[in-house]
Amino acid sequence: MTLLKGAAVVGQSGGPTAAINATLSGVIKAVINDNGENVTSLLGMRNGIEGLLRDDLVDLTAAFTKDGGPDEDKLSLLEGTPAAALGSCRKKLPDPDKDRGFFNGLIEIFRKYDVRYFFYIGGNDSMDTVLKLSKYLRTSDYEMRCVGIPKTIDNDLAGTDHTPGFGSAAKYIAVTLKEIVRDCSVYTVPAVTVVEIMGRDAGWLTAASGLPCDVPGAGPDLIYLPERPFSLDAFLEDVKEVHSRKPAVVVAVSEGLRFADGRYVGEGTQSGAADVFGHKYLAGTAKALELFIKEKLGCKVRSIELNLPQRCASHLASLTDINESVATGSEGVRAAIDGKTGVMVTAKRSPGPGYLISFDASDISGIANEIRTVPDEYINERGNGVTPACLDYIRPLIAGEVAPAYKDGLPIHLVI
Amino acid sequence: MTLLKGAAVVGQSGGPTAAINATLSGVIKAVINDNGENVTSLLGMRNGIEGLLRDDLVDLTAAFTKDGGPDEDKLSLLEGTPAAALGSCRKKLPDPDKDRGFFNGLIEIFRKYDVRYFFYIGGNDSMDTVLKLSKYLRTSDYEMRCVGIPKTIDNDLAGTDHTPGFGSAAKYIAVTLKEIVRDCSVYTVPAVTVVEIMGRDAGWLTAASGLPCDVPGAGPDLIYLPERPFSLDAFLEDVKEVHSRKPAVVVAVSEGLRFADGRYVGEGTQSGAADVFGHKYLAGTAKALELFIKEKLGCKVRSIELNLPQRCASHLASLTDINESVATGSEGVRAAIDGKTGVMVTAKRSPGPGYLISFDASDISGIANEIRTVPDEYINERGNGVTPACLDYIRPLIAGEVAPAYKDGLPIHLVI
Repeated sequence: MTLLKGAAVVGQSGGPTAAINATLSGVIKAVINDNGENVTSLLGMRNGIEGLLRDDLVDLTAAFTKDGGPDEDKLSLLEGTPAAALGSCRKKLPDPDKDRGFFNGLIEIFRKYDVRYFFYIGGNDSMDTVLKLSKYLRTSDYEMRCVGIPKTIDNDLAGTDHTPGFGSAAKYIAVTLKEIVRDCSVYTVPAVTVVEIMGRDAGWLTAASGLPCDVPGAGPDLIYLPERPFSLDAFLEDVKEVHSRKPAVVVAVSEGLRFADGRYVGEGTQSGAADVFGHKYLAGTAKALELFIKEKLGCKVRSIELNLPQRCASHLASLTDINESVATGSEGVRAAIDGKTGVMVTAKRSPGPGYLISFDASDISGIANEIRTVPDEYINERGNGVTPACLDYIRPLIAGEVAPAYKDGLPIHLVI
Repeated sequence: MTLLKGAAVVGQSGGPTAAINATLSGVIKAVINDNGENVTSLLGMRNGIEGLLRDDLVDLTAAFTKDGGPDEDKLSLLEGTPAAALGSCRKKLPDPDKDRGFFNGLIEIFRKYDVRYFFYIGGNDSMDTVLKLSKYLRTSDYEMRCVGIPKTIDNDLAGTDHTPGFGSAAKYIAVTLKEIVRDCSVYTVPAVTVVEIMGRDAGWLTAASGLPCDVPGAGPDLIYLPERPFSLDAFLEDVKEVHSRKPAVVVAVSEGLRFADGRYVGEGTQSGAADVFGHKYLAGTAKALELFIKEKLGCKVRSIELNLPQRCASHLASLTDINESVATGSEGVRAAIDGKTGVMVTAKRSPGPGYLISFDASDISGIANEIRTVPDEYINERGNGVTPACLDYIRPLIAGEVAPAYKDGLPIHLVI
């Protein structure tokens, strides 16, 4: 390993989470604690790579240093603030083999500030940015280390046990489902409540809705993940079976449910628009199922889309997730100082009972643009629920409650 | 005042809230602390008056007494459990002048258990039940005292400063809006987010979304209450004006918004069904406005319905609301022991700075079936926001955070 001294840039990219600022806090802490031995200063890119391109950077070392060390009070507020404090973007970089000019332009900006460390906090699409920049750097004489720091509520990144941000979203979903199930239990008239949960391709978040089922009757009765083709006939049969036992049926569904022929269940009500990565914004899976049940059974039906609060309810973040997110950010800085580049920070769970996580950094090329879905053994045979093994996997990730600072009844957020 | 000795029944009715069990806890505590001097035992009606009619009662004195006094640990769990622990109903009683037979039947059940105290926790429709039963009792030789104990997230009951349950719902809405606004602020592309909030006729809950505005930029940009007729032209003008200053516009709207001609804004997407009180279930105000803005401005638009979590998110209840809800329940028992009947417990706020509440009991006839809407001076001139006086009124009601008990990352709920 050779010593590399220079400034660092950090950016946040993709959809916000309740924990992405905790990861930023971890990066800031590690840089300040490095005391300039390797990383001389930390610049925040406003709106990810877009801010870099327009030279819109903020001096984070200055903003978060107090008495020569990390300003713990301010960092604690940052960790309790939802959504990307530096702003975010959804920018897809060109292929470095085809558009070297774009990357040459980036290097000019790096040179201007003597940036030798590049940290990018994000999900699948952001790791694509790290991959492309790393690829370009291998054929450039500019020395810089590039590290991806994972963040996604979807938990669908390959190569790691779970992703920072998932635990908090999972906790929000599990707590909210438990509360909704209690709410729905008060009447004696037959009713069906369909709750739609985020997750385009992977059902991890929807699976988390099963956590309250540890207490009989406290969780949803039926859970459908996008990993299995969805059948309206089987769904109707399932609902009728639950109705034969109790009046209030609560169903958790993933926004990404598809029929066997590949059509989305919520297709009729989806946006039609696609983002720059070609993803369609889905909306309406629960609504479509509400209308279906109303037509078939005629009972009271309600659909609920958990929507944005799933990714920004920092008041209900998982303490485990927040602590691990801070650690993941710091690990990213350590990996870069240790000489690693073209990697993403990964988490490994020790086998056996108890919950123990160790961090590493793995080659980004095997991670970017891969989707890690819920494995078969985590879904029950009928495809309408999750298995105990699945809940055992998720349960430790939602453990512990945060204690955000409140003023006048509202949480205090830090705006950079 | 004459001494009246006998059993009591208590029921919960109407839509659940995060605080309705705290009120039940207050009733239970007061009865147990009475030591049988007036109230010999407390029976809970399962599903409100419906449970009474089918003789489905639960002995709450036995369930919540420990070592001769109230079981504080169990009651604390009850106070942290959302939704009506006794179950609820939406039953409209007949007019006592027209159907004395119905009420004679009720009296038979009261006689069976020597019930002399009737406590009913609920909102407008439940107070109608208290009113009718009281009216009947005035012409009956059966001596029983009837007390209504207010509960509604809508805050629309007449004769009282505010209603138990409102503070917790208001806190959930204010915190969630603050988190959503941060989430929406991360991108640079123009976008509009429309958040739909409960409140059929009164805009109190929607007004609470303005609380984060104490910090500039932390709350919604535009707030529309059902107290003012809604104009699509003015709305579009308002959104354009905000867009001229910032890319992310967040709008809070009441589910009950209507045009000047009386039609609901969400009419096209409403349920069509009406409940037994003749209320239509609305859904789709935000969705309708999402489609309108998408058509007119072509920018990214998202609609969010806060839905059931508004009334059942007990993990985020207001400590002030929970404490006052307990007190309101106990006050109901005290009023009845003091000889009052045909009344509802009311709260009065002392004038001046600071926040001080005193309780009383007021004649139910001036309360039941009345709607208390948001007064003119709480809405700004343009009709697209709330005034500082409005926020001063709501702010103390969301003060303080609860600390519910958690196990394995999830709140513990008590099931009776």
